[in-house]
Amino acid sequence: MSEKRIEISQLGEFGLIDRIKSRFTLQQPTSLKGIGDDCAVLDIDAENCMVVTTDMLVEGIHFDLSYIPVQHLGYKAVAVNVSDVAAMNAKPEQITVSIALSNRFSVEAVDALYEGIKAACDNYKIDLVGGDTTTSMSGLVISITAIGRAPKSKVAYRNGAKPNDIICVTGDLGAAFMGLQVLAREKEVYMADPNMQPSLDAYEYIVGRQLKAEARTDIVFDLEEAGLVPTSMIDVSDGLASELFHIASQSNVGVRIYEDKVPIDHETFETAVEFKLDPITCALNGGEDYELLFTISKEDQEKISKHPDIHMIGYMHERKNENVMITKQGNTVRLQAQGWDHFRS
Amino acid sequence: MSEKRIEISQLGEFGLIDRIKSRFTLQQPTSLKGIGDDCAVLDIDAENCMVVTTDMLVEGIHFDLSYIPVQHLGYKAVAVNVSDVAAMNAKPEQITVSIALSNRFSVEAVDALYEGIKAACDNYKIDLVGGDTTTSMSGLVISITAIGRAPKSKVAYRNGAKPNDIICVTGDLGAAFMGLQVLAREKEVYMADPNMQPSLDAYEYIVGRQLKAEARTDIVFDLEEAGLVPTSMIDVSDGLASELFHIASQSNVGVRIYEDKVPIDHETFETAVEFKLDPITCALNGGEDYELLFTISKEDQEKISKHPDIHMIGYMHERKNENVMITKQGNTVRLQAQGWDHFRS
Repeated sequence: MSEKRIEISQLGEFGLIDRIKSRFTLQQPTSLKGIGDDCAVLDIDAENCMVVTTDMLVEGIHFDLSYIPVQHLGYKAVAVNVSDVAAMNAKPEQITVSIALSNRFSVEAVDALYEGIKAACDNYKIDLVGGDTTTSMSGLVISITAIGRAPKSKVAYRNGAKPNDIICVTGDLGAAFMGLQVLAREKEVYMADPNMQPSLDAYEYIVGRQLKAEARTDIVFDLEEAGLVPTSMIDVSDGLASELFHIASQSNVGVRIYEDKVPIDHETFETAVEFKLDPITCALNGGEDYELLFTISKEDQEKISKHPDIHMIGYMHERKNENVMITKQGNTVRLQAQGWDHFRS
Repeated sequence: MSEKRIEISQLGEFGLIDRIKSRFTLQQPTSLKGIGDDCAVLDIDAENCMVVTTDMLVEGIHFDLSYIPVQHLGYKAVAVNVSDVAAMNAKPEQITVSIALSNRFSVEAVDALYEGIKAACDNYKIDLVGGDTTTSMSGLVISITAIGRAPKSKVAYRNGAKPNDIICVTGDLGAAFMGLQVLAREKEVYMADPNMQPSLDAYEYIVGRQLKAEARTDIVFDLEEAGLVPTSMIDVSDGLASELFHIASQSNVGVRIYEDKVPIDHETFETAVEFKLDPITCALNGGEDYELLFTISKEDQEKISKHPDIHMIGYMHERKNENVMITKQGNTVRLQAQGWDHFRS
């Protein structure tokens, strides 16, 4: 008896999401936006809407407790959801936190996890309003839902980019990825000889970027102050290239970025070289940066041209599927989206 | 070196939730109600609010895929969250669904899971608006967040019951618990002799109550039509006794119910007797009924006295901590809350 069976790895995460999405249609008038952006968008009244996002972090897949202290994990689990709220140009207000954990975890470990969650709530000025706690058969699972609010006129979707819009990205890229490489190397050294002390001093910035993710809610306030609404926006969780592809395909435009404009911290750059990795590849495909990637109309350029942490890295053009980078040598290369895909690893 | 370590089982689930709750205070003006009810309540405008609830179901803890077909599981995972929305006297509108699953699951299994989720969405007229999909190291984890809406004046909290309020419960109790006992017995029979066909015909109702949970959203509409707002409400997920304790302690009142008024289906009753279990104990402590338990003012009694599926089982009194049941023989016995506690099993 032959049983036809499709493996999830054949579809990949995005394929699976598309498959699910295709079977559901929206029927509630309050559902303004469903699956397919950083957040769902729900109607409140004539002017305002609510945004909702959810993320599940699984031990052994998304985090390794031998790298990340459990309070940092709590903080990061909140930050990645707040980042999705910021990516809609909305302000976060509430979260719910559900955890499943095995009897390997003590009450002290749970306390440390919620200390991290509380530090994030305090920093982002949000409230923990609910959740669920349960046992698991093995590792730790954290599922967080974040809720935010925005005037409808300010919500930035992935599909609003227009030809000639300028592509902006905040902060710097590739650091969290390089921080993870350093942590992995130090773990190997430690496993081989437990007397060796890990030497992380030279990598403080990039390891910090991996262990203590921050959401760029500050940018949402800065854009408001500048009187600027991005034409599209997304947060950089899977890597710059992958996020550029999301905006390009949903907006029906093409991307042109310049290698020399992509912001890379010198520590990221030097560590990449030390690891014999190409720094720009780390910046394009590293992931876990939680910076904001957005597009603005050319007319708005002046409004943020002096912002010290917003970098203009290229522009959109009308040739769909032509997503390219101009290298430092002046060559035009096609961008490849090689974001994280947990189903394909 | 002695390390002090508190086991989570020492606290239990409610102890752990209290511990978490005590460390968080609400700071957003839109957070009307945080941890401690069936849903959190968020402000929308002068008249309306949103309610939010979340639940995490873990394979091997909350469900056994050798009992429950995966599409039923999808349906049930939605229904239990919708039930929490109904327990606030609110109407559900949206859900997000996050799943973690191992490579043991095929795309066909995921399809079946989402077929169940879709059937529930269609039945409760709600939209799937977001979620997350990821791999897990072992079993299936489903985390659902449900969002509903209600006029502020109609939201029913757990803490609003007053002395002399009448205690009402919908449907019948203990059936899902007895259904689970039947399924467990049939599994044992099957494990001993795989040629034995399970004989579930005589247990159709109770097995159905276990495998196909339904949220009582119909009651929210019926109460609206009757022009009645319960003084307090909760859904029966952990067992009638446990839920009565929640309302009593949060409302600072005592409970007095009558054994002969507690609704038990004849199939539940007969199966309990067959299993040498006390039917009223199954009804009080069984759990997973997903009926609504609520209190109403005496003046409102007439408004629902003819409702075929609402049963008045007792009343509240002012002697806090005196939660009793009058048996069929006229004896007064103290109620014991022995709800499900996954951390103590």
